[in-house]
Amino acid sequence: MKLVEEKIKAEGKALDSQVLKVDSFMNHQVDPKFMKQIGDAFAKAFHGKRITKILTLESSGIAPAVMTGLVLGVPVLFGRKKTSLTLQNGLLSAEVYSFTKQESSTISVSAEYLQQTDVVLIIDDFLANGQAALGLLDICRQAGAEVAGIGAVIEKVFQDGGRKLREQGVMVESLAKITALEEGEVFFEEEVKA
Amino acid sequence: MKLVEEKIKAEGKALDSQVLKVDSFMNHQVDPKFMKQIGDAFAKAFHGKRITKILTLESSGIAPAVMTGLVLGVPVLFGRKKTSLTLQNGLLSAEVYSFTKQESSTISVSAEYLQQTDVVLIIDDFLANGQAALGLLDICRQAGAEVAGIGAVIEKVFQDGGRKLREQGVMVESLAKITALEEGEVFFEEEVKA
Repeated sequence: MKLVEEKIKAEGKALDSQVLKVDSFMNHQVDPKFMKQIGDAFAKAFHGKRITKILTLESSGIAPAVMTGLVLGVPVLFGRKKTSLTLQNGLLSAEVYSFTKQESSTISVSAEYLQQTDVVLIIDDFLANGQAALGLLDICRQAGAEVAGIGAVIEKVFQDGGRKLREQGVMVESLAKITALEEGEVFFEEEVKA
Repeated sequence: MKLVEEKIKAEGKALDSQVLKVDSFMNHQVDPKFMKQIGDAFAKAFHGKRITKILTLESSGIAPAVMTGLVLGVPVLFGRKKTSLTLQNGLLSAEVYSFTKQESSTISVSAEYLQQTDVVLIIDDFLANGQAALGLLDICRQAGAEVAGIGAVIEKVFQDGGRKLREQGVMVESLAKITALEEGEVFFEEEVKA
């Protein structure tokens, strides 16, 4: 999707060979009109899949997931990294390691909101090593729900998350595919192909 | 706003005299169409305030804030409860105690995205003791930004957050006002007035 690439080119900052900072429009500040366009793109990519629920992970996944849910007309469920007084019973959980936060956390989803009859679209901001997506996939399997696919706003194709998911037969749709990061520079798949 | 009251009556669960569970449409699962209506309501309430930015707190504030930002056409900034590799420098911070999570946390906002020229609308899911709102207000003051007001989806008027904020001269707009909770029952301000 040209739009995401252009946004990254205009506002993204490659901090080193691994970390892309997109704080200005996705991970800290959010551009709602841009997120709505992302929702439109995911809705189009997964059109006809009879999706009944979107599953994401707090916090940066919420904005693109909610916009996709608005377009598709389905509820959005966000996995939580901590339990609270209102989220304690009947939990489906998975362990997820975050490389940017350098810590492992247990993500939890209430079994009440994820049913065997659900057809789930998993949405996340980044797909890199695939830890978050694999955790959410595991939770869907625990619930017995069908997974229609995974939508990532930005995929780092030089990390192996996308490959691992596609090898499992999961449909993965990424709106921008980054082949390499160098300090101050971002390379996209389409550019490499050209 | 009748819509929020009706949603709480249909799906909310008063766990005890303090905690209202609205996991089915706001704090865990999100109803995007309902959130869009909330965005419309906040945009209407703060119409003409020349808002340039919306500030909220991860995670449950993100959905109503992003929808309000979509309607008003302004960026949304969400305060983070943890720093990460991409959020470390030039931070504005405040201490916030969460009664539902029973822990204190430091919320941080990058100074880069909050300017002296900004007119800020603070949006949050709940207004109870006002800890989160006061923390966000403090961060706006550190940035020298003007605060147009605070929009809460649900206010527990039997706790003193709303009073404290209004006493400071802050415009507070709550879409549903709860006067009391009893296990299994929720009482609203309008019902008491009637």
